[in-house]
Amino acid sequence: MEKNGIPYQFADRIGSLAPSAIREILKVTQDPTVISFAAGNPAAFAFPVEQIREISAKLLETSAEQALQYGVSEGYGPLREQTKERIKRKFGLGTEKDELIITSGGQQALELTAKVLGNEGDAVICENPSFVGALNAFRSYGLKLLGVPVEEDGMDVSAVEKILAEGRRRIAFIYTIPTYQNPTGRTMSLAKRKRLLELAEKYDVVILEDSPYVELSYDETPPPPIKALDTDGRVVYAGSYSKVFSPGIRVGFALAAKPVISKLVVAKQVSDVHTNLFFSMVLSQYLEKYDLDGHIAFVCREYKKKRDFMLSRAEKYLAGVSVSKPGGGLFLWGELPEGFDGFELCRIASEKKVAAVPGSAFLTDETKISNGFRLNFSLPTEEQIEKGMAILGQAVETLLRK
Amino acid sequence: MEKNGIPYQFADRIGSLAPSAIREILKVTQDPTVISFAAGNPAAFAFPVEQIREISAKLLETSAEQALQYGVSEGYGPLREQTKERIKRKFGLGTEKDELIITSGGQQALELTAKVLGNEGDAVICENPSFVGALNAFRSYGLKLLGVPVEEDGMDVSAVEKILAEGRRRIAFIYTIPTYQNPTGRTMSLAKRKRLLELAEKYDVVILEDSPYVELSYDETPPPPIKALDTDGRVVYAGSYSKVFSPGIRVGFALAAKPVISKLVVAKQVSDVHTNLFFSMVLSQYLEKYDLDGHIAFVCREYKKKRDFMLSRAEKYLAGVSVSKPGGGLFLWGELPEGFDGFELCRIASEKKVAAVPGSAFLTDETKISNGFRLNFSLPTEEQIEKGMAILGQAVETLLRK
Repeated sequence: MEKNGIPYQFADRIGSLAPSAIREILKVTQDPTVISFAAGNPAAFAFPVEQIREISAKLLETSAEQALQYGVSEGYGPLREQTKERIKRKFGLGTEKDELIITSGGQQALELTAKVLGNEGDAVICENPSFVGALNAFRSYGLKLLGVPVEEDGMDVSAVEKILAEGRRRIAFIYTIPTYQNPTGRTMSLAKRKRLLELAEKYDVVILEDSPYVELSYDETPPPPIKALDTDGRVVYAGSYSKVFSPGIRVGFALAAKPVISKLVVAKQVSDVHTNLFFSMVLSQYLEKYDLDGHIAFVCREYKKKRDFMLSRAEKYLAGVSVSKPGGGLFLWGELPEGFDGFELCRIASEKKVAAVPGSAFLTDETKISNGFRLNFSLPTEEQIEKGMAILGQAVETLLRK
Repeated sequence: MEKNGIPYQFADRIGSLAPSAIREILKVTQDPTVISFAAGNPAAFAFPVEQIREISAKLLETSAEQALQYGVSEGYGPLREQTKERIKRKFGLGTEKDELIITSGGQQALELTAKVLGNEGDAVICENPSFVGALNAFRSYGLKLLGVPVEEDGMDVSAVEKILAEGRRRIAFIYTIPTYQNPTGRTMSLAKRKRLLELAEKYDVVILEDSPYVELSYDETPPPPIKALDTDGRVVYAGSYSKVFSPGIRVGFALAAKPVISKLVVAKQVSDVHTNLFFSMVLSQYLEKYDLDGHIAFVCREYKKKRDFMLSRAEKYLAGVSVSKPGGGLFLWGELPEGFDGFELCRIASEKKVAAVPGSAFLTDETKISNGFRLNFSLPTEEQIEKGMAILGQAVETLLRK
């Protein structure tokens, strides 16, 4: 008998989303004395607060009735056009076959794509490890996850081909974060991007390209998005304003072939009718009046310093750990020597009041062991990085000595 | 071969959401010379713009970093507490068994409930006609709709019992809008509310009570919500701030037993991570500093005038049509004599540049004929009501003479 009296029967699709042991570790981050490298949050300096303040005040003077009323499910018209123009100019994205929908954050673009393209029991081919929010969105539609390794130059494309050639299940889509992948920070080479698109054409599957970090680039320019190579509308591109403007406003987008966008609009309508209109309008005016690219350049300079500082502390304190040097994004990825467990490291660190996310959190099968762990550098201060990495180093030492 | 080159395979669940003939009729509302009674929008005077302006400015001075950052999936803590306190005080809602989640509008509360409680092929018992946004959300999870008539005193509860007794399909939940139902404007009697809850207990099913209009009450106080009679956490209550504060901000909520809310939070997290934080904070401060009840009383006085004016024009112009006198909400419901088609009426009216929604749009089976049609009185001006109802009267005459 259930504690609340009623033995609720939940849908099967929700059963696979039970709280995991990892969430227990992450609970320590609610303690303000804990140094957290576990977040995925932008730093506060990444929000153009002054400009948002000014635009908001004016909008509420001149256009309050529109901003507070219902909007259309496709999203605020001017913001759609500005976004299309911007990603075309910056990344060569979009052809006449494509259309764009504004979503409630990039997350919703992923969730709606799964809803629209996947029947229960279909499979998604994805990187393993990958972004857990996406994996859970796919699980929540009863999709099976077929993970392939993430190599230094990105997704193991041969492993993708093997799965496609076997053809055991219908593939709803291939999910990839090609640029500054979460959690590994790795970037897929141009050769692999081309090869993946060829495979998608050969086996007639769709690619869902998730690209929240593409603008957070600190060294060389990354290869063009897969969607920029896509001439026949086979790639659904999910983007976000969370990392370069504000995540709290929940504004993202998807660019895809028109028939796909039509279905996404229908799914969006039953999900939350439309994305909040006021901040769609604020963002639109920001894009019109201010220099988002300049703002992003500033944010990147600051993040690059933080990345480099955390890397230097990793070198100083994390003896025996292999740490990636990502060209962008928000995370470092550490790997313990083979046979050691990233979960155990994070457990020890959490007792010492430092939080990191164990690699197993990002696996298609969370019960498997990963020797990896993810460190966020955007949110903690330099002081916190110095202190936290020293403590993490002690935790590594404790673990490796066992 | 598909026009875009790729024959996309969409999920079965989305196939049932194809654009309908009704949407074609509603397209005329994009023409600004059309008088629209087809909307479901609040009037602009229903938004407390001055106060929102003041609070927003202060928030961006003092708490921008918090308001623009990621939040938690449960929703902004103070707003959750204020909402719980308010609906307890006003409607007697909530016990120790219950918890509350902030959603991206009331629509998301319905959609997430379907996701969490219904397996594909399960059924939902609902009013017929009912709110099409809810019906489509249920369809989008492969749920079958079992409609029962809406009588003058609400849902036909005997028909509900018959379906439950037959037990042909698993029932995911019973969906009802007991107060000022959309589209009929009818209100379920207290006796029926009690009976429906008894049936839910007897047959061990959940009730999803959708209550977006409960605060828009113009005559007598409606009976208490079904959720207020619910002692064992069997009712999921969906509420919204769209009709009494602003729909554009997309803030609603669900109150339900704690195990149900836990699942809704998980589903919410994969859907859009969290509801936009800035307006959750604006609303929270509004509730703290201002008098929402007083604002609603003002809105109700204005809407009552508009309802009464539209009713008087219906009496004057719509000969042969039976028009409901709803005690609240945003809509009148007209019924043509038996055998006449509300869709045909709306088609004729749309040619004369007046838009109304045919009753068939709200049916569990849209291909069936309904002699009903829905008229919104919150958005049009008195002048538009006068002119539009006269034209609608001509359309009725044309139809009945055929």
